Amino acid sequence: MKRTIYFKNKPVIIGAGSIGGPKESEGSIAKFIETKLDDDMFGEDSFEKAESKMLFNAIKTAILHAKKKEDEIDTIIAGDLLNQIIAATFAARNFSCGYLGVYNACSTFSEALLLGATLVDGGYMNNVICATSSHFSSAERQYRYPLELGCTRPPQAQWTITGAGAVVVSADGVGPKITGATVGKVIDYGVVDANNMGAAMAPAAADTLYTHFMETSLTPSDYDLIITGDLGTLGSRIFKDLVWEKGFNIEKQHVDCGELVYNICEDEYQGGSGAGCSALVFSSYIYKRLKEKKFKKILLLATGALLSTTSTQQGESIPAIAHLVVVES
Amino acid sequence: MKRTIYFKNKPVIIGAGSIGGPKESEGSIAKFIETKLDDDMFGEDSFEKAESKMLFNAIKTAILHAKKKEDEIDTIIAGDLLNQIIAATFAARNFSCGYLGVYNACSTFSEALLLGATLVDGGYMNNVICATSSHFSSAERQYRYPLELGCTRPPQAQWTITGAGAVVVSADGVGPKITGATVGKVIDYGVVDANNMGAAMAPAAADTLYTHFMETSLTPSDYDLIITGDLGTLGSRIFKDLVWEKGFNIEKQHVDCGELVYNICEDEYQGGSGAGCSALVFSSYIYKRLKEKKFKKILLLATGALLSTTSTQQGESIPAIAHLVVVES
Repeated sequence: MKRTIYFKNKPVIIGAGSIGGPKESEGSIAKFIETKLDDDMFGEDSFEKAESKMLFNAIKTAILHAKKKEDEIDTIIAGDLLNQIIAATFAARNFSCGYLGVYNACSTFSEALLLGATLVDGGYMNNVICATSSHFSSAERQYRYPLELGCTRPPQAQWTITGAGAVVVSADGVGPKITGATVGKVIDYGVVDANNMGAAMAPAAADTLYTHFMETSLTPSDYDLIITGDLGTLGSRIFKDLVWEKGFNIEKQHVDCGELVYNICEDEYQGGSGAGCSALVFSSYIYKRLKEKKFKKILLLATGALLSTTSTQQGESIPAIAHLVVVES
Repeated sequence: MKRTIYFKNKPVIIGAGSIGGPKESEGSIAKFIETKLDDDMFGEDSFEKAESKMLFNAIKTAILHAKKKEDEIDTIIAGDLLNQIIAATFAARNFSCGYLGVYNACSTFSEALLLGATLVDGGYMNNVICATSSHFSSAERQYRYPLELGCTRPPQAQWTITGAGAVVVSADGVGPKITGATVGKVIDYGVVDANNMGAAMAPAAADTLYTHFMETSLTPSDYDLIITGDLGTLGSRIFKDLVWEKGFNIEKQHVDCGELVYNICEDEYQGGSGAGCSALVFSSYIYKRLKEKKFKKILLLATGALLSTTSTQQGESIPAIAHLVVVES
């Protein structure tokens, strides 16, 4: 069994697009976000349609920045948190290229990057879009409570981000390169609190990172940044402890997209989460810094909690997963 | 843009596992199904858990027939129809290898085959599992009505099959080979009747097949069989008409897994459907016939209706997709 793969032809991320909701557009990475919304309905009549439109917008922006025409895109690889990933599907309906739907909760963005890089690196395709989205209101009412209830949130809760990110992965061109990836496996430590995603996902992130170090003989100091998707403040602490127990200190390199995305104040508690979280932060702040070569080699480790309301109602614990991709400027 | 890809190293399907519910175990392909259940609860306390256990069983059987050990499997690529694909996730939790969740409704099986073949053909992995499942009762109560209501079904309705199929795609070994694939695109002809999936999906199947013929210069007579996933009787007719309009007569080659799986009687109307439909029929009947070289070259074109209850409630039409893989004995 091997979980780490290498991309010898180094597929290039030639363009990126990002869009954020009102709260995200006031956060600490706001100035890097391409499209900032002051209304999270985005002119639509439902949160779900707004989310899909945001994903569409991010894809369009990515294609524009990649200086490609739409008919040069071979396939869109996309997913989101909605049942039957309808945000991705309805966004893909507006394009004439292929579509591959993927779902690994909030680790979907790194899963899409891994598969997109594989298709391009192997010479099967020339230009592939990798994109994900999430929306606070569509996620909240699907996974938790009706928004109208105004439920109190516990302190370990995160705030699903409203936003989307998309990148164009290409066989040729200039930009940061995807050089490797490690596929995540399903890890379940028996956490049952659907408000404490960070604790459920941290062991999966630690497993993938440790596997990556073991299979590649690399160490934390080989990376400028080790970027988790949405562990939040508490989850990040558990993650760093678990990795430390396995013999690696990542205190210097680790940042979490969920922690980065907001100026943490009372409402968001542990920071942002959602399939759009790592996509938004990567496609804005991280991507721009990579292009400027301020980061040389980073590791994106988006984490996903693979629960559903049905599995929770049936008393199941929360399995989690984390896929990892290596990006070099 | 190109949607057809070729696998030069011809990844081999070295093993397959299939499991069917009580109704499927009495249908016309019953004798090819490995594990036949006389109780669709499969010893579990919910339909969802039963579905996940069926998928787990199919994967285990496939590994066994492939004469592989579990730790030789690099990754499981799987999906199903449940919200957040929990049948696949909870099945994957029992294995120590990687997991990539995919979702394109009932075309998920051919999507998984396409991605699995890519990972193996490109030399990124050695052994990949591709698997999907569906369960009549878990699908019915999630997508349509509570089972206790005993709703009357309209004549254009299909019957979601209870079953799962899994294959091991490998870099080496003996068995049928995956030689090519065409990625589907999202097609929406504006069908809004969630009971008439065949009509919604037929245009997507026709588009992918036509694209395949155009990009490869092959014709229907190059194939022994052109196998759609779950168009049903009505959908198959629409599909053949649409392909005929584009200049190809596939009357001789076409079969539909949904039409094959049952001895059509009153209840099932148009035949079977579901993400498990093409997986079950391929992993049992088709796979065995390919191994016996009774079929030389077939084309599996699983079709998916990409709706959700939310999209239907919000007045959206039903987008559809169909991915195609070419398998040669």
